Amino acid sequence: MLVIAVDAMGGDNAPESVIAGVKLVQKENPDVFYLLYGDEKKILPLTKKYRLDESMFKIYHTEAVVSMDEKPSVALRTGRESSLWKAIYAVRSGEAQAVISAGNTGALMAMSKICFGMIANVDRPAIAVVMPTLKEDCVALDLGANAECNASNLVDFAIMGHVFYQILYKKEHPSIGLLNIGSEESKGRDEIKEAANTLKKLGNRFNYHGFVEGNDIGIGTVNVYVSDGFSGNVSLKSIEGTSKLIMGILKRAFKSSVLAKIGLLFALPALKKIKKTVDTRRYNGAMMLGLNSLCVKAHGNSDPFGFSCALRRTIDLVRHNLCDEIRRHMEEVVFEMEARDEEEASQKRHSLLKE
Amino acid sequence: MLVIAVDAMGGDNAPESVIAGVKLVQKENPDVFYLLYGDEKKILPLTKKYRLDESMFKIYHTEAVVSMDEKPSVALRTGRESSLWKAIYAVRSGEAQAVISAGNTGALMAMSKICFGMIANVDRPAIAVVMPTLKEDCVALDLGANAECNASNLVDFAIMGHVFYQILYKKEHPSIGLLNIGSEESKGRDEIKEAANTLKKLGNRFNYHGFVEGNDIGIGTVNVYVSDGFSGNVSLKSIEGTSKLIMGILKRAFKSSVLAKIGLLFALPALKKIKKTVDTRRYNGAMMLGLNSLCVKAHGNSDPFGFSCALRRTIDLVRHNLCDEIRRHMEEVVFEMEARDEEEASQKRHSLLKE
Repeated sequence: MLVIAVDAMGGDNAPESVIAGVKLVQKENPDVFYLLYGDEKKILPLTKKYRLDESMFKIYHTEAVVSMDEKPSVALRTGRESSLWKAIYAVRSGEAQAVISAGNTGALMAMSKICFGMIANVDRPAIAVVMPTLKEDCVALDLGANAECNASNLVDFAIMGHVFYQILYKKEHPSIGLLNIGSEESKGRDEIKEAANTLKKLGNRFNYHGFVEGNDIGIGTVNVYVSDGFSGNVSLKSIEGTSKLIMGILKRAFKSSVLAKIGLLFALPALKKIKKTVDTRRYNGAMMLGLNSLCVKAHGNSDPFGFSCALRRTIDLVRHNLCDEIRRHMEEVVFEMEARDEEEASQKRHSLLKE
Repeated sequence: MLVIAVDAMGGDNAPESVIAGVKLVQKENPDVFYLLYGDEKKILPLTKKYRLDESMFKIYHTEAVVSMDEKPSVALRTGRESSLWKAIYAVRSGEAQAVISAGNTGALMAMSKICFGMIANVDRPAIAVVMPTLKEDCVALDLGANAECNASNLVDFAIMGHVFYQILYKKEHPSIGLLNIGSEESKGRDEIKEAANTLKKLGNRFNYHGFVEGNDIGIGTVNVYVSDGFSGNVSLKSIEGTSKLIMGILKRAFKSSVLAKIGLLFALPALKKIKKTVDTRRYNGAMMLGLNSLCVKAHGNSDPFGFSCALRRTIDLVRHNLCDEIRRHMEEVVFEMEARDEEEASQKRHSLLKE
């Protein structure tokens, strides 16, 4: 049996969309048990309204809630009685295998980092998301956990992204690209070039494609896009802004004349189908990778369907032991790098002795 | 009379699209004279085909062409007989007031930097472009000239973007935003926070809005978006990629059923109208700001209309003395900052004497 800790009070539409979201994944995941943290008076009626399987959840009553705009540092000091902290702590104490919240991002990150600690050989956590492309879905990280990164951080992110994609899309060798401002080897910042060199050396283990640029994300050039948290965040938000811009312009166009309105009527079924493809709710769920346990942030304004998508991905990742897999890959890579260094050193010694 | 130096051989569709593009702006700018650099045997017949006003251009024959994939360093060493270098040099020697090319970006930048030199008090050049938003067009810089920037560079870019927007859109106090990963003052990299502090101090002179995020570009939150060249480039290309992604999905949808095809037929006039609004060719022309003379890079695959848009903007900026205006603003800002420093120092001395 899998156990997921749920902060039922986090998010703009909580707890209703959270409980309704849980319902949407229950049928296909009959072996998952939910620990629901929050105001019992509000949650209990909702579990009845949405007919949650009563044998598969337990409500833990909490009074306090970390508000959406609380500073992480303040939440850390004062939020120990909140639904968010209690849900995170359930994972730390071994009662649950992952935590999900649509609440305060910064507080969730800070609390999880303290409670779970980092996986050995990973220095910094990274936020990973799934995004649509013209080909298949892709994975991008870091989306904002680290404003600045060194080469070693970027290599860690590449390894974590590799495992993340492997599990989600059952592909043995997902292609990995480093986000840069040109595809030529001489372009970009030093840390990116250094990370590229390391990934090339690990070519037997990872399918490193090379540098990619912002427009490659939409095209779907690679499966995993790796960047520092600043560029990644700017890129993700630029993509969001552009989607809104184009959709806004389209709406205006379809309202601009009677003919266009008639056209829209005819095209509506087809447009609805594509709406499903690019439905941002399907990509809900930002994963905090690099921690010893899985922590998932659902979008603050998640509706039931959106929350269920983030929850479904969480369950999938727990089922396939994401954190253990990251740990294993990190160990193997560190071992390989050390062996390589040792070999190089021994060759040097050997040639020195010969002289 | 204004004189513009044109690299007639640069770009995928040169020289035809260049000459045809010149024709498109000639009528509305009867006082502009063009120096056309390139292969006379190819250019002369085109000037006849497109009926360029014969009294308003002169062809300077050159044999060599800097290819699109030539390394800038190589182009600098070996390209002194090329149409690109000759066109740039015409500005340096005072024959022309600005240069435009759809050719090799890196070579254009490197050659212009050497030929023109930097405006006093500006350390680094920045690439600026115009982009559409849900509100009015905006200006963004740097789009890739500098992979890394310090606070002082960002402030320079803000000032240059201010002048650039002022001239293009005749708005006295365009709003300026610094691209960051959150709008709170505590967010982001140190250099951005430091730049924000300086811009706040210059509040009497510039309409500094605060931090903005990637999605603000599509929304049109501010008039001028300032960033380092890495984030700016990633953002711009993410926007391009997303546009392609959405347009690709839309095309697929409108071809997916007979009904949708009929719908498209009805909606076509309205969609064509919006195509005009978001026509990327209208935003052609990346300006290299911070140099002593104006250097404009038209898109490599410019068609005649695209090239004409970049050329029209070039003429507009020369007419309004962009470089002089940047120089004046930079001087005034430096003067103000020095006066402020002096005042602070004098106050300190004063209070020390009193003690």
